[in-house]
Amino acid sequence: MSFQDATISEVDNVMTQAWNAFHIYRKMSLKQRAGFMRSIAKELEACGDELLEVAKSETNLPIARLRNERARTMYQLTSYAAACEKGDWLEARINTAVADNTPPKPDIRKMLVPLGPVVVFGAANFPFAYSTAGGDTASAFAAGCPVIVKAHPEHAKTSEMVATAISKAAANSYMPVGIFAHLHGASFEVGKALVEHPYTKAVGFTGSLRGGKALFDAANQRKEPIPVFAEMSSINPVFLLPEKMKTSATEIAQMYAGSITLGVGQFCTNPGLIIGIDNDDLQKFMASLSEEIKKAAPAEMLNSGIFKNYIEKRANSLSQPDVETVAVAEAEPLMYQGVPTIATATAAAFINNPFLHQEVFGPYSLIIKCKDLQEMLNVTRQIEGQLTATIMGTVNDINENTVLIDAVKNICGRFILNAVPTGVEVCESMQHGGPFPATTDSRFTAVGPDAIKRFVRPLSFQNWDNKLLPDELKNENPLGIWRTVNHELTKDKIV
Amino acid sequence: MSFQDATISEVDNVMTQAWNAFHIYRKMSLKQRAGFMRSIAKELEACGDELLEVAKSETNLPIARLRNERARTMYQLTSYAAACEKGDWLEARINTAVADNTPPKPDIRKMLVPLGPVVVFGAANFPFAYSTAGGDTASAFAAGCPVIVKAHPEHAKTSEMVATAISKAAANSYMPVGIFAHLHGASFEVGKALVEHPYTKAVGFTGSLRGGKALFDAANQRKEPIPVFAEMSSINPVFLLPEKMKTSATEIAQMYAGSITLGVGQFCTNPGLIIGIDNDDLQKFMASLSEEIKKAAPAEMLNSGIFKNYIEKRANSLSQPDVETVAVAEAEPLMYQGVPTIATATAAAFINNPFLHQEVFGPYSLIIKCKDLQEMLNVTRQIEGQLTATIMGTVNDINENTVLIDAVKNICGRFILNAVPTGVEVCESMQHGGPFPATTDSRFTAVGPDAIKRFVRPLSFQNWDNKLLPDELKNENPLGIWRTVNHELTKDKIV
Repeated sequence: MSFQDATISEVDNVMTQAWNAFHIYRKMSLKQRAGFMRSIAKELEACGDELLEVAKSETNLPIARLRNERARTMYQLTSYAAACEKGDWLEARINTAVADNTPPKPDIRKMLVPLGPVVVFGAANFPFAYSTAGGDTASAFAAGCPVIVKAHPEHAKTSEMVATAISKAAANSYMPVGIFAHLHGASFEVGKALVEHPYTKAVGFTGSLRGGKALFDAANQRKEPIPVFAEMSSINPVFLLPEKMKTSATEIAQMYAGSITLGVGQFCTNPGLIIGIDNDDLQKFMASLSEEIKKAAPAEMLNSGIFKNYIEKRANSLSQPDVETVAVAEAEPLMYQGVPTIATATAAAFINNPFLHQEVFGPYSLIIKCKDLQEMLNVTRQIEGQLTATIMGTVNDINENTVLIDAVKNICGRFILNAVPTGVEVCESMQHGGPFPATTDSRFTAVGPDAIKRFVRPLSFQNWDNKLLPDELKNENPLGIWRTVNHELTKDKIV
Repeated sequence: MSFQDATISEVDNVMTQAWNAFHIYRKMSLKQRAGFMRSIAKELEACGDELLEVAKSETNLPIARLRNERARTMYQLTSYAAACEKGDWLEARINTAVADNTPPKPDIRKMLVPLGPVVVFGAANFPFAYSTAGGDTASAFAAGCPVIVKAHPEHAKTSEMVATAISKAAANSYMPVGIFAHLHGASFEVGKALVEHPYTKAVGFTGSLRGGKALFDAANQRKEPIPVFAEMSSINPVFLLPEKMKTSATEIAQMYAGSITLGVGQFCTNPGLIIGIDNDDLQKFMASLSEEIKKAAPAEMLNSGIFKNYIEKRANSLSQPDVETVAVAEAEPLMYQGVPTIATATAAAFINNPFLHQEVFGPYSLIIKCKDLQEMLNVTRQIEGQLTATIMGTVNDINENTVLIDAVKNICGRFILNAVPTGVEVCESMQHGGPFPATTDSRFTAVGPDAIKRFVRPLSFQNWDNKLLPDELKNENPLGIWRTVNHELTKDKIV
């Protein structure tokens, strides 16, 4: 099935409708927004197995994985809805007037308000959770922003079905016309036109470094620059520290064989770089990992483009000077199947060759052999911003290598100890985002209810009558939310 | 007195020192950071009247104003220090492990951590409060970031004295070498080199739209783009609504004559645009305002560049089609004195001439005459992003014009009722920032302790032993800070 690219006049039309809807939706209560989001979750469920079958046909992902991913998407919608209603995220702050000050202090009250229409670009590897009704859409709706989705061309039919579910939910929940729109566009032009439209006030994107950076640049070159939250590229380095490796090399290898091959390596948190000290323990680790990788089954990748990209990038990486293949899955791959592969390189090769720092999207991992901990630190200092970084280490390893630990901490958004980076919990404490080029804005997360904060800005009300203020800021605190009143966090009324 | 521009190798040297200092300072406790900030406040006071005299000689600002501004600067330092210690701003979030979940939920804990060295460009109009030891510097130190100040060339000696005070405080507080640096640079090149240096992780700027936008562009074109918080340009529109005007035209005129001429109009929140309905009440308002403006005394502006700029921009504005001068201060101005001036234009002239939307920095205000409330709405829709917007209106005026009120709310960071925009309280509920071109990032404030949030990013710790976590995230909550633990805000320990 193929869809027609949207025209410029269609783009203008949906953006104008979104702008009009914004002025209605932003004034709807937190409860109404939450109700709408819960209704979307219900409609997604009501799509039944048919939606999973369509997604399977477009992405090659197994039905069980797609069923889980839909459940995750529904959980995102309902948990962000709960967070939206609870209102902690509004950062309500109140300083009441002090009339006898010189000069008198006015009454000032602040809260977060929505930015305006948000354009969302879905991810190839998450047709539900980071696409049409995914995390960006859920957080924009919670924030009070209309959403315009540019369907991912590789799962356009899935996107169309999800869009229909959102539209049904919008109608059931008495949402204004224009609260949601869904456009197709295989070309970059449609996306660029959406980002450049004056009514677009923020952008969410999950995909390649090239695509994300191009949208980021377009957004900054607008007459009115707007924020772009692009999650783009991460190799998720794993540091194997010596004391831990003495006792656990085999165990770590087995754990990581699973993480490297999970979902044919098609996760943004896939561990693409493993850094160890070149000694017997590392040999043991590599031997054990090799054994697992050789046994691993190749599996079909998301689409032919991603498959071709994997084949090319893997071949390029393996052909770099001082890179050696360590193990390749032994089963003969069928068409479009990604073959699990591990390779190794010296620290010097890594330090001198920026090409080896690039993501190879798929079940591929490069093991860097360092002479000692000083060389491991030198490697760390060459690594760009990452979504995650992982330490495999004992308490001694950590306490004896604080300079290394601090350097690693400084390049990532999520810092993991003795576990694998794959698996991203949807919760308040999740940071899914990191220094460039992992994302374009390390100050925000794409997962967890704090993702709502990407699409809001603070607005102060000075000297307003209580009855004219939004409910969030009224003396009575009718919504019962947490507020900072005269320096103290409280749910109390102001009397 | 003149200072030499910093060389590229000096820039590289201070940035390398700042980067090294960052790794020490970021680990210092909130108490240590706060102590350092309080020590800066003490050193500023210890500079005595000599500092005020030097500032007066460089800026033409009266001693009384400078004394107040220094007190405000000290209050910023001490109140952000208190906020820093209190730790509410850290957004600590904890989700404890759930072992019997499928799959098991890991322990994840998140808090805000500093971005790295921050480059600060001081403001011409606030030699203390928004310059060397001003709001940007105070919030960066609270966040855990070293600061590099590029001295404003128009008050370079004042800046040098303040820098010496900061350096003394740094030494007294056992801060690492490189925690603070101070460079001179009259050319754009020095500033650009600072913004482009790879160790620079964020930028604070207060000044012109042209200057701020140039730094914003340079920061976005880096290999690793970084955030720039530039506060640039605002005309702070004031909307005179009809019922209010019926009873209070004269009173409003008197209030606004004071606000327009305060500090020779050299405030970023100066009301440069007043929008009313063309009727007898507006005539009364203009007559009364004219009387006040004619009596107003011209006064010396900050420096010859700002004076020349005022003269040119005012003349340009007055020479636009359909703009008429309403009143000019009658006293003969001396050299470099800014002459208070008000002018008027039709709504149509304003709508069709973007030149009239530009800031005229100084004691100048343009009154827009609208035929009716619909035309006032049309004018509003043409106004770019602003730091503030003010409604002069009764409850009826507001309730009967919700579309207009919503449109005004959407273009500003601080929304004022029946007061003047000049005067910016330093408090939690202050938003000093607004949609572009008022600032480059409407999601953050430059005033109040929330300004700290500009220089931090979230970092999640997954699966770390309690004793290896930062104090902010330990089970015992040794700092006694507010944290969101398993969905609920609390100061409780985790047991």
